[in-house]
Amino acid sequence: MFDVASDKAARPTLNIVGAGAGDAAILTLAAADAIAHADVIFVDDLVDATVVAQIPPTAEIRKVGKRGGRPSTPQEHIISELIAAARSGRRVVRLKGGDPMIYARGGEEAEALTAAGINVSIIPGISAAFASASATGIPLTYRNVATQVSFITATRADGSLHPVKGLAGPGRTLVIYMGKSVAAELADALLQDGVSPTLPVAVIENGGRHDQRLEVTSVAALGETVEAFDADGPVLMIVGDVVSKRVVVAPIHSGHNVHFAHG
Amino acid sequence: MFDVASDKAARPTLNIVGAGAGDAAILTLAAADAIAHADVIFVDDLVDATVVAQIPPTAEIRKVGKRGGRPSTPQEHIISELIAAARSGRRVVRLKGGDPMIYARGGEEAEALTAAGINVSIIPGISAAFASASATGIPLTYRNVATQVSFITATRADGSLHPVKGLAGPGRTLVIYMGKSVAAELADALLQDGVSPTLPVAVIENGGRHDQRLEVTSVAALGETVEAFDADGPVLMIVGDVVSKRVVVAPIHSGHNVHFAHG
Repeated sequence: MFDVASDKAARPTLNIVGAGAGDAAILTLAAADAIAHADVIFVDDLVDATVVAQIPPTAEIRKVGKRGGRPSTPQEHIISELIAAARSGRRVVRLKGGDPMIYARGGEEAEALTAAGINVSIIPGISAAFASASATGIPLTYRNVATQVSFITATRADGSLHPVKGLAGPGRTLVIYMGKSVAAELADALLQDGVSPTLPVAVIENGGRHDQRLEVTSVAALGETVEAFDADGPVLMIVGDVVSKRVVVAPIHSGHNVHFAHG
Repeated sequence: MFDVASDKAARPTLNIVGAGAGDAAILTLAAADAIAHADVIFVDDLVDATVVAQIPPTAEIRKVGKRGGRPSTPQEHIISELIAAARSGRRVVRLKGGDPMIYARGGEEAEALTAAGINVSIIPGISAAFASASATGIPLTYRNVATQVSFITATRADGSLHPVKGLAGPGRTLVIYMGKSVAAELADALLQDGVSPTLPVAVIENGGRHDQRLEVTSVAALGETVEAFDADGPVLMIVGDVVSKRVVVAPIHSGHNVHFAHG
């Protein structure tokens, strides 16, 4: 049996799975296993094509992305579809970019599913901060340089800029998710908080993927750099002296030679 | 060829690999692949036994842990051994608990190795915060509850308590690594920063492993709880209202049915 939660077969089950922010090489073994044995997979837009390519041809794929030009699937609709699929007795995977427990609504979905009597397992994924750090050679912490790392999304649910007070500067690394459209405003907020204009910032598009791009800039030049960078894909910013500790690294193996036993 | 960086065969190569903080189920495909094809593996103490069990019998294992009763291996010694092993032409893996780029000296080792002419690849791992979040069902962010997540180690290199100012409270999640011996001091520092005494704290030992333990407490009771908890293994604390969003989750599959092609 290959259900991740097959020992609870009496209750409908569902796996909430982190696809990681990079390509299929950084899927976890448990995630790859759950994907390989799923009957139906609900896929977010942010999941990399190399991960989608791991889905077996027998599995039904349902795209429930929230970005791009087309209308997004409302969250309540996704949840009711997940519940229906799990209750049908099929092996259901809810596949999310990055890690399900950060900026991915994994907690909300797990709560709603559990309340509906669904047995839920959660499989972690490599979040964009970690996929980007390894793939660019920029550490998130470094002895005597940074011991604190904070993650924020650039804007909050109401559209306002996320506060950055105290999060960047000596000894600290600030990682900003989804900030490409408000880079200049973020830079202003950092400067108002007393951060040095020369503090380095790494701007990373598609961190950990084959089309990753990196630009190193400063807080003072951040707005201009991001505008010129003109990214289509997800952008992550790493703000702090750790950026100057960057090491040039070789890309990792694609992991495509992994096979799963069929049970 | 299965070297992660086999396309640069002219230079000695070495893979710095995150083992993840949990068991082998949350190894990445690239990490499992690098381990399966290594000639020599330098292993930290924090790497789980189920991951060590994935090391092929043909590979030489060198334990270079820094904890426990026995003397730790000095960092300079580890680095010179890594350089020598890579220069010998063998496939070398440097295996670290969690993710190499946070609280693991991955940046320092990558810097020293690169300076010595070694070609380095870095494979990310699931850090303890994410391994623990998925395995306990506690989200790190949750809409309208927390949009900011900060990671600190409880103490700094000089042994002093890490500052917590502004990191915990409404809208924020604070994750504390390695805090079990200073839990009461951390609680005092949080209270002095104005954090509510009733703010929930999750205390997690061995998050994501078969022997995981979880205790939910409050900032006011943190010192007492951690003392009674009496953990042997690594302890992670999650401080914030997200703890009250916990969902009971089923354990994930062990991933032991994964096989690697031999190239």
